[in-house]
Amino acid sequence: MESEGVGGIRTAIVVGLGLMGGSIARDLAARGVRVLGWETRRASLEAARREGIVEVGRYDEPADVVILAGAVLTIPDMLRMVMDTMGPRLDAVRLVTDVGSTKSSILRAAEALGIGERFVGSHPLAGDHRSGWEASRTGMFQDARVFLCRAPSTTDDAMDLAGALWAGVGARPEEIDAGEHDERLAWTSHVPQLLSSILGGTLAGQGIPRAELGPGGRDVTRLAGSQPGLWAHIAFDNQAAILHALDAVDARLHAVRDALATGQFERLSALLEQARHWHERG
Amino acid sequence: MESEGVGGIRTAIVVGLGLMGGSIARDLAARGVRVLGWETRRASLEAARREGIVEVGRYDEPADVVILAGAVLTIPDMLRMVMDTMGPRLDAVRLVTDVGSTKSSILRAAEALGIGERFVGSHPLAGDHRSGWEASRTGMFQDARVFLCRAPSTTDDAMDLAGALWAGVGARPEEIDAGEHDERLAWTSHVPQLLSSILGGTLAGQGIPRAELGPGGRDVTRLAGSQPGLWAHIAFDNQAAILHALDAVDARLHAVRDALATGQFERLSALLEQARHWHERG
Repeated sequence: MESEGVGGIRTAIVVGLGLMGGSIARDLAARGVRVLGWETRRASLEAARREGIVEVGRYDEPADVVILAGAVLTIPDMLRMVMDTMGPRLDAVRLVTDVGSTKSSILRAAEALGIGERFVGSHPLAGDHRSGWEASRTGMFQDARVFLCRAPSTTDDAMDLAGALWAGVGARPEEIDAGEHDERLAWTSHVPQLLSSILGGTLAGQGIPRAELGPGGRDVTRLAGSQPGLWAHIAFDNQAAILHALDAVDARLHAVRDALATGQFERLSALLEQARHWHERG
Repeated sequence: MESEGVGGIRTAIVVGLGLMGGSIARDLAARGVRVLGWETRRASLEAARREGIVEVGRYDEPADVVILAGAVLTIPDMLRMVMDTMGPRLDAVRLVTDVGSTKSSILRAAEALGIGERFVGSHPLAGDHRSGWEASRTGMFQDARVFLCRAPSTTDDAMDLAGALWAGVGARPEEIDAGEHDERLAWTSHVPQLLSSILGGTLAGQGIPRAELGPGGRDVTRLAGSQPGLWAHIAFDNQAAILHALDAVDARLHAVRDALATGQFERLSALLEQARHWHERG
């Protein structure tokens, strides 16, 4: 327990105490930061308070940092709610950030709401398919990459503080353009997520329980357990990039299917070999 | 080290000392069974001999059991080679079995070659994407399901010995009809495998390294590292069932794509929810 807060942060408001928000709250509290928890789910709020991680009901106090830890499409509403609730006390806040999986739309919203200067979009590559306060844990961001994206008017001071915040909980922050981030994440995260759900849903329709799968099939379908609402939000927020990537997967599925259907052993082996080579290179 | 062999087996011939054959050889040797190793790759054979797991070059000795541990399409050739090499010494063999991922074709081959009575098709759900003697290990079959399939003339004695063999190395053998096995495995193993390669190959084509993926995406693409030749064999050996299952996945991919493209939030959420529900049920 350090007496000095992360990056000079004394008080942080965490809005949403689910897997992400709860884990950030735990890490900050462990480092001596005072955490004010805002959460509409009574049970999560009570659990967080009982464990001594957050103070609750402190809607009239100032803070250095506000962290919006909700599903992608709800973050603009969260931001509006925070601005309405805090009013002039918002002037003392040095950084407002979020943890959403897409970044362009929230940055547009922050800029439109006039808080662009102090807003940084964060996307930590951490967490798993579980959700809620009960899944949150300390150390979840240790060594995790965290993408940081600027709104048009984000200041260097806000970027520096966001970097210090994430480095302070053990993560590896790196700056990236928001549009490039969203395009890239469609390939590396959103489409793998959807494919896992597509396979899980297909097997569900076939009446084959997951327990029938071997360790490999269980790996492929692990993400099918993720929160549907969260991922539907992400999918619509990054619609064009995801459709483009899904179509590329579909084209390759057809290439594999056609090689198999027409007896092209060498062609099928070559398609699988390209994937194996990619896997080996890490 | 037990003095009595597994199921009364004193001597076993293991043909192919890769991941599967090597691991079986290790488990049998650890239980006091004398293992004769047949393997064309000089380095694997030498390593297995040096470690004291197998005896090599014993092509003129009798054995109780022969285990064919090769890729699916090569097993019939392995079986012919064993029959040619052993000649009349084959009469003393009580069980010939394999470890291939499909079962119908090998059972047809065994029956056609006149060895159906003593042949049992085995498919252990164990192993991973690695291969070769250097990946083999003791205990790989501990608690693994092993499907056992009869040829038309397989005797109960042969089935009992196959069950004792697998139970003896810690696995859980269960009998299943070969056609039903292959149909089922198309869904639970072969198509998950192909999908993982399809996604890996798509990302390779996009120039996105696997290191860019988060833990979830890495799970989905883990099987992309499997041996292309092995899986091309399996795919062609189980062609009709795999094409049927791939088409079902493709149909669901299009359902997800269309819901996303046409702005149907509830529809997309419902498709993802079906997968999540399936995942939760285990």
